[in-house]
Amino acid sequence: MKRADKDLAFMLQYENVAWYETGMVKILDRRVYPNEVSYVVCENHREVAQAITDMVTQSGGPFLAAGMGMVLAAKEGQDKKEKDFLKYMKESAYRLSHARPTTSEKMVKIVNELYDVAKKAAKSGKKADEEIFKRVVENTNKKYERISKTGKHLVDKFPEKGAVMTQCFGETVVGFMVYECQKNNKDIKFFCPETRPYLQGARLTASVIKDMDGDVTVITDNMPGYVMKKQNIDVFTSAADVITLDGNVVNKIGTFQIALSANYYGVPYLVTGAPDKKHPNIDSVNIEERDPEFVLHAMGRRTAMKGVKGYYPAFDITPPSMVNGVVTEKGIYSSFDLESYLK
Amino acid sequence: MKRADKDLAFMLQYENVAWYETGMVKILDRRVYPNEVSYVVCENHREVAQAITDMVTQSGGPFLAAGMGMVLAAKEGQDKKEKDFLKYMKESAYRLSHARPTTSEKMVKIVNELYDVAKKAAKSGKKADEEIFKRVVENTNKKYERISKTGKHLVDKFPEKGAVMTQCFGETVVGFMVYECQKNNKDIKFFCPETRPYLQGARLTASVIKDMDGDVTVITDNMPGYVMKKQNIDVFTSAADVITLDGNVVNKIGTFQIALSANYYGVPYLVTGAPDKKHPNIDSVNIEERDPEFVLHAMGRRTAMKGVKGYYPAFDITPPSMVNGVVTEKGIYSSFDLESYLK
Repeated sequence: MKRADKDLAFMLQYENVAWYETGMVKILDRRVYPNEVSYVVCENHREVAQAITDMVTQSGGPFLAAGMGMVLAAKEGQDKKEKDFLKYMKESAYRLSHARPTTSEKMVKIVNELYDVAKKAAKSGKKADEEIFKRVVENTNKKYERISKTGKHLVDKFPEKGAVMTQCFGETVVGFMVYECQKNNKDIKFFCPETRPYLQGARLTASVIKDMDGDVTVITDNMPGYVMKKQNIDVFTSAADVITLDGNVVNKIGTFQIALSANYYGVPYLVTGAPDKKHPNIDSVNIEERDPEFVLHAMGRRTAMKGVKGYYPAFDITPPSMVNGVVTEKGIYSSFDLESYLK
Repeated sequence: MKRADKDLAFMLQYENVAWYETGMVKILDRRVYPNEVSYVVCENHREVAQAITDMVTQSGGPFLAAGMGMVLAAKEGQDKKEKDFLKYMKESAYRLSHARPTTSEKMVKIVNELYDVAKKAAKSGKKADEEIFKRVVENTNKKYERISKTGKHLVDKFPEKGAVMTQCFGETVVGFMVYECQKNNKDIKFFCPETRPYLQGARLTASVIKDMDGDVTVITDNMPGYVMKKQNIDVFTSAADVITLDGNVVNKIGTFQIALSANYYGVPYLVTGAPDKKHPNIDSVNIEERDPEFVLHAMGRRTAMKGVKGYYPAFDITPPSMVNGVVTEKGIYSSFDLESYLK
């Protein structure tokens, strides 16, 4: 039985990187998944912030974790006076939203909304933690609905039978992509570059597809160019950390060179996500560089001799000329016409 | 003190992946180097063949190991009658030269030459093992001389100060490259993609450069495209497993997509090695595919969930239009004019 025949909720477990349970936030530790299935248990919002800093969860995970952290914060502060409570919530919101440098902008928006919920609850005498929890669930459902539509538009461009290459693809959009393929009886083989140094492609993207009974093959990051031709890839697709209004895609390191190979072989590159009003062009985007030590290790073991340096740019930039479509919940847009999405 | 100021022999230790010592062949185990410096000790030629099969040594290593294996074989058979001795040598030569599928052609040539040495020694009453050993040393010295010249021609195209990207580069040519840079006071930063799944770039190429006091930075295989621009790479260079007479370069998987990025950014790709008369074009070249399990592991630990497939093409093909020069001991040739090299 294909997963698509079962309850849709099944696949959404992959968004359940963090949840609220009897006064604790439990976060699936994606640093060790799928070799180990273990959880980081946070008893207060500070521990949630630390878990986000420590990259216990990635992709959509930190946003949900931060929301659940706000629930904890509201519980921690429930016996305070209104003024002190709101001060405590503001500090907690700041702590959670600044736990990691790259995601802070989007985070700020999310936690500020939840701060407003807390404020409203405090004014009206409602329980703030319950109100925040309700809003987080609502927002998550809205997000699912949006991603579900995006998945439909993406899979619409897949052949009936063929091969698709991904790159470090977020868990929910991968889930909906596989779900849509199965629903429409599309016979697709997925190829996932492993995405060093954290191996998210091998560990996470491939796991979601496999768990949904999809056909998935992992390759190393030096193979996409060759595999593109050899395995007759029909579509290359990825999510994006940022899509600028003028069509540049900022995504996990490696996306650029896969897009370049796709272009060379005439394979379309379709990116999922929405253009970001805050970034009219690439100048305002900061490409995060991370600790070079990660590059010098694989699965916890040192790869290079002492004294050899490492370099770890975490993202790269794919120019709009290499992007053949931006797939959103509203449909597919040209990378040179993203203003239309905002209208 | 730079290594170039010392004895040239220092750097040649990297060719000493195998040597003959008191009746045994010792092979540096490059599967675990540089984390561990250990040797596989072979007491007979069968053990040498097994070590080659097991990929204890790579690049130039198997050829030298096979030569040393022929010395052992001659010693093993020294008390046999001439006819039996030559039969034994022929069988040993076959075993050593067919220990691995991709290298067998070149191997056959090398061990056949040593078989002829054994035959001549047997006829003239000389000690075959000593004669073979002498020839192996002679051939190795000739090889060094050739690679030394190639290194000079390559480094001649480097700027006085700049950055060079390599790809899974053979140990001797890397050694001579760094030596020539230091001799000519060229200030070069080297960037080595790690070359998954075996990590030869991180473990071997980077180690040679570091041991010679060169400036070396390892990156993961998804980074060359971005690093090419960000670090202002001046030259991309690699060796080749095969250079066809019409200019196709068959080399370690990943070379194609780095060359593609180099082309995109206007960075020259210079390949070292000689065109192969046996391959007028790419049709006669077999691209070896290896055990997919290797792709699903990093440093001995499983990366992907059970049930996820792997795919392991070990080499790729870079077309002549992306190759800006073939650097040989005689000078640099156009990838579209390799017949000139053979004249």
